[in-house]
Amino acid sequence: MSKSSTSKFMAMKGAGYYSKATIGAKHVMDNAAGMILEAIDRMNLTDDGSVFRATDMGAADGGTSIDLWRRVLGEVRKQVPGRPIEMIYTDLPRNDFSQVFQIVHGLTDINSYLDEIPGIHVMTSGTSFHDLIVPGETLDLGFSATASHYIASLPCNITNHVHMVGATGKEREAYEQKGAEDWETMLTRRADELKPGGALCLFNFGIDEEGRYLGNTGGVSMFDTFSEIWENLVDDGTITRQEFLDTNFPQCYRTTEQFVTPLNDKNSPVYQAGLRLEHVESRVVRCPFEQDYTKNHKDPVKFAEEYIPTLRSWSEPTFVNGLSNDRNAEEKSQIIDDFYGRYQSLVAKAPEGHAMDYVHIYLVCSKVL
Amino acid sequence: MSKSSTSKFMAMKGAGYYSKATIGAKHVMDNAAGMILEAIDRMNLTDDGSVFRATDMGAADGGTSIDLWRRVLGEVRKQVPGRPIEMIYTDLPRNDFSQVFQIVHGLTDINSYLDEIPGIHVMTSGTSFHDLIVPGETLDLGFSATASHYIASLPCNITNHVHMVGATGKEREAYEQKGAEDWETMLTRRADELKPGGALCLFNFGIDEEGRYLGNTGGVSMFDTFSEIWENLVDDGTITRQEFLDTNFPQCYRTTEQFVTPLNDKNSPVYQAGLRLEHVESRVVRCPFEQDYTKNHKDPVKFAEEYIPTLRSWSEPTFVNGLSNDRNAEEKSQIIDDFYGRYQSLVAKAPEGHAMDYVHIYLVCSKVL
Repeated sequence: MSKSSTSKFMAMKGAGYYSKATIGAKHVMDNAAGMILEAIDRMNLTDDGSVFRATDMGAADGGTSIDLWRRVLGEVRKQVPGRPIEMIYTDLPRNDFSQVFQIVHGLTDINSYLDEIPGIHVMTSGTSFHDLIVPGETLDLGFSATASHYIASLPCNITNHVHMVGATGKEREAYEQKGAEDWETMLTRRADELKPGGALCLFNFGIDEEGRYLGNTGGVSMFDTFSEIWENLVDDGTITRQEFLDTNFPQCYRTTEQFVTPLNDKNSPVYQAGLRLEHVESRVVRCPFEQDYTKNHKDPVKFAEEYIPTLRSWSEPTFVNGLSNDRNAEEKSQIIDDFYGRYQSLVAKAPEGHAMDYVHIYLVCSKVL
Repeated sequence: MSKSSTSKFMAMKGAGYYSKATIGAKHVMDNAAGMILEAIDRMNLTDDGSVFRATDMGAADGGTSIDLWRRVLGEVRKQVPGRPIEMIYTDLPRNDFSQVFQIVHGLTDINSYLDEIPGIHVMTSGTSFHDLIVPGETLDLGFSATASHYIASLPCNITNHVHMVGATGKEREAYEQKGAEDWETMLTRRADELKPGGALCLFNFGIDEEGRYLGNTGGVSMFDTFSEIWENLVDDGTITRQEFLDTNFPQCYRTTEQFVTPLNDKNSPVYQAGLRLEHVESRVVRCPFEQDYTKNHKDPVKFAEEYIPTLRSWSEPTFVNGLSNDRNAEEKSQIIDDFYGRYQSLVAKAPEGHAMDYVHIYLVCSKVL
């Protein structure tokens, strides 16, 4: 997930905790690595000694994707033993890039690929994926998982919810509009960055054909629960109505149709910049904590204890940012602990239906030769 | 200075503090920017659209060199308006790379060059300068200031001192030997990285023709003072003799002759890899805190208060690392505070002769076409 998702809470927990809390996101990537390997096969790489450059956009601490890159870069190394590889992890400037280097250079308990595959030069970038991260036509493989739902700015407050999936009318439209604009920008920048023949593989949070999305796959809706508990804090005077209004995930969940539109429209800047859709599919990856609960330990209290950190790992900054700046850090911290505490109690008491199942729309594109 | 120099103390002080404490290091760079501009002129750059790549090795938070890069990259942009620029800041993995991006992307009170000069792509690397940071023959300009005195490992403990400048006999030889090996490795890696015609500009701590080095320019010797106060802590039982022995700056200060030897020896790997010395000189840059004291405020207490942080900014990790791991963090912290407190008292009581004057050996090299 993106940098925006690393929080003070996570920072306090220290090295690797973020990656552990997002083990489900790791399953998403590991399960779909084959799509990237196939894209590499289609590239027909030549062993000409030129640099093979890859980006992992919105990589957070890089731990979640480490096994995916072991497979992908291992395959690149096998196909073109004479080409140096530049592996660039990107996220927003406040991301913990030191943690990226500590993980990839093997200074944590996470098993890195760096000493297994020769000729890899690891770098990071703090440039937004709405801008040009690397110079034009220098990129062989662009990758991003679970990051492009972040929009560059909020189009408006959402009156009755905290996420655009619960927004209606003009508010919903505003988020979809901003989501479409940012998506087009994101794709156009990548089209500019890619070498002809290069590939772009994006595993995006989205809304599938059955209307399912993250934490909303038939049971209790996670974003509705977030919104309801946050509103309970208004009802009992813990936070103000204005703070509820000011709490909005800076995200847009797009449908498959919305994802593919600029790739299929011959008049779009994306298409004109040479980007072509090669593959699209949606998948649901089950919540590992809910699966462990229902299939193994069957302990609702343990489930609640393990489940809330995975939600908190990426959602906390949104709730903190919603709080008034008149509050001091300690006050904010107490409210946030109270909020997640309530969610945890709710799950412990009535675990049925709680699950942060992942719903991704997987896209593989190539830049025309 | 290098990553090794950022400490908990500095981290606590927060954004930009490190750069402010090292204002003298900034003077060193700003004063010598002309050498880099001249090297760029000699490159005879062609505006062929290819990437112009530069590295700033051991950049710490990137704040100290920001004005130097404004001038250098501004000149590159002027000479080759059509070439994208990749600006890569490097340091060791534990460096605060987020702070680099926050500074360069203009999120701090430090004035960045990024929105003034178009077409710059900023990245960071956590690869040691003893390894290949970027792929072979992809680098136009390699730069490092006040970093290459760090050696990759300690050859031995120093019995009677904390720095190799105070070592004698076989201990001194061991550090000089390790310093020579690391210097040769460092230069050979850069020779490999550079494109033919590329330049390498290094502003290194060293020992000048008159035997002067950092904090040792005729007055009170800084490293001797470090050593004496640290030994006082042994004498009064605050630390053990073994801890004194285990305290060694992982540094080698080299003489001008030692710096140029592998560049002039036709049989050295450095020379054979194509690196040639174009310019060498030594300079003393006066301690800004001592200058401010003697020329302006004349207040010894204020001088001591301002002077110690600039020493502490880079020396603290060495003293912390010397302490036994049997001590807990709080104990260590108290000892370190005591240590710098004693240094500060000493300066406040007898300011005469205290000054961290910078002594640098400046080298400009090019890779043969």
